Amino acid sequence: MTTTIVPLGTASAIPVHGRHLSALALERKGRVWLFDCGEGTQYRFLEAGLKRSRIDGIFISHFHGDHLYGLMGLMSTMALLRREEPLTLVAPQGLRQIMAVMPGTEPDLLPFPIEFVELDEGFGHATVVAHDEFTVTARPLAHRTFAMGFRFEEHARPGHLHPDAARALGVTDYADFRRLKAGKPVTLGDGTTIAPSQVLGPERPGIAFAYVPDTRPCADGRRLARGVDLLYHEATFGEELQQRAIDTGHSTAREAATVARDAEADRLLIGHFSARYEDPTELAEEARTVFPNTEAAEELNRYVLDPREKWAALEDEHEPS
Amino acid sequence: MTTTIVPLGTASAIPVHGRHLSALALERKGRVWLFDCGEGTQYRFLEAGLKRSRIDGIFISHFHGDHLYGLMGLMSTMALLRREEPLTLVAPQGLRQIMAVMPGTEPDLLPFPIEFVELDEGFGHATVVAHDEFTVTARPLAHRTFAMGFRFEEHARPGHLHPDAARALGVTDYADFRRLKAGKPVTLGDGTTIAPSQVLGPERPGIAFAYVPDTRPCADGRRLARGVDLLYHEATFGEELQQRAIDTGHSTAREAATVARDAEADRLLIGHFSARYEDPTELAEEARTVFPNTEAAEELNRYVLDPREKWAALEDEHEPS
Repeated sequence: MTTTIVPLGTASAIPVHGRHLSALALERKGRVWLFDCGEGTQYRFLEAGLKRSRIDGIFISHFHGDHLYGLMGLMSTMALLRREEPLTLVAPQGLRQIMAVMPGTEPDLLPFPIEFVELDEGFGHATVVAHDEFTVTARPLAHRTFAMGFRFEEHARPGHLHPDAARALGVTDYADFRRLKAGKPVTLGDGTTIAPSQVLGPERPGIAFAYVPDTRPCADGRRLARGVDLLYHEATFGEELQQRAIDTGHSTAREAATVARDAEADRLLIGHFSARYEDPTELAEEARTVFPNTEAAEELNRYVLDPREKWAALEDEHEPS
Repeated sequence: MTTTIVPLGTASAIPVHGRHLSALALERKGRVWLFDCGEGTQYRFLEAGLKRSRIDGIFISHFHGDHLYGLMGLMSTMALLRREEPLTLVAPQGLRQIMAVMPGTEPDLLPFPIEFVELDEGFGHATVVAHDEFTVTARPLAHRTFAMGFRFEEHARPGHLHPDAARALGVTDYADFRRLKAGKPVTLGDGTTIAPSQVLGPERPGIAFAYVPDTRPCADGRRLARGVDLLYHEATFGEELQQRAIDTGHSTAREAATVARDAEADRLLIGHFSARYEDPTELAEEARTVFPNTEAAEELNRYVLDPREKWAALEDEHEPS
């Protein structure tokens, strides 16, 4: 039921201060979706207690080495572990060609099929994973090379059935309860029709998570982050280096917080810290002046997202009509 | 004066049990030469207290990912650190082309020049580095893909001058002492010629180190290891998996020891341990039945090679004639 976010690397460009290169795992029902794959990600899986064999898909935001170079080793290890399950790889156009040249990652020689979803520079937005229970969409960001961010969003579940309400309306048959629970109307023996809305609680929204890596604050970043339960946004610099953030296509902590605030996100994790910040606490403090519910992402920490908290709040507000 | 060997990764193929992928640093006079560069090597430099900026050259033994994939991140980090010094890259033919395709390692875009020494399959032996004070030679190995090993060897230094012996022969002039020390004869005022051999101790041999990675035991491995102070030889398996070693082009611990013994090496370090051995002590024990001076390479340990130990032994044996 829960979705867990595990930052595996929060360094930018160069690993220092015990921080590692960009990668973030999303775990749900025992399966893992990986956002970026900096060098060493396969080691970080071991250290996080995550299974490399459980990865269903990998999203590469852009082709800077600190987001990409761990992919080769991970592919190679999956091959050595004799993976046969298909793997989804979402990336800028060109990944397949890079892998074809790198010894050991040639897609045609790997023992598992890869479904490549390669996006061209200039795309507007795209659904890159359409799963039964969630979708992942991509939007372009504003970095100094073609880069994109992602939004993971569970489908809403139908509301809970209130059996007392149904019984009060005359429903007695087990099959009728099931139909109503599945969101379908039933007609009783006396000809009365009962609509699902009469007996169901409110639709239960799923979890939404946005991954907004290397970018200036931008409209597409805000769109990805719109109302999410958790936004991971890069915050390479503090506001004292605003100009450097502009020059390098990155965000300050304050800017990341502004995105979270404007998108009405519930919670913000910042990461991708420049090597100059030995302790990112100061960046989190800067962000909190704009968006109080901010934390500096802690590597290997598990950030648990549980939709039931939201449902409880909705149920309190709502009684079936 | 000393040369230090620092194993950075002793795992084979897949990182497990706290072991990392293949890489071994040789440090001498504050400069570093790196043998293989598995994923994560740049992190291991930090953990070993070695400076990435001090690397003069990198030797890639073969194009299996566990020996190669860390090169991309290391190149990229060197570029970010604004390296300008030239770097020597020794590898099988094709490395330049791989780097040209990988975003962030395109040789023409790096801020430092690379001297590529690319060797073709089928080469016999080659001097790949000719330094003022040492040479590095390469020879092909017997792996299941084209692979090579390396021998690092310091030039011998001239013997120590024995000033008492020179004075006894009538040498008094400072310039004559200097000529003799540099290995040149002098003629005294009375017409007598003094040969350097009359006043110099024995020539002082340098340190030799051989790096013999993924291979079956083979003649070229023994040639690389001939009389070295330290041989690093792979020992992926124990002898109970002899057939698997043959099938995969690797060595057992006993076979590695046989190479050390036949080459009359002084000391053997084994590494590249299969994931199935949680503790490589059993492999070292197997090797010691053939070659007692064997240890299982310990990551980040510093194995110091000091030529003065040999010189002391030679001086004891030798008095100038």
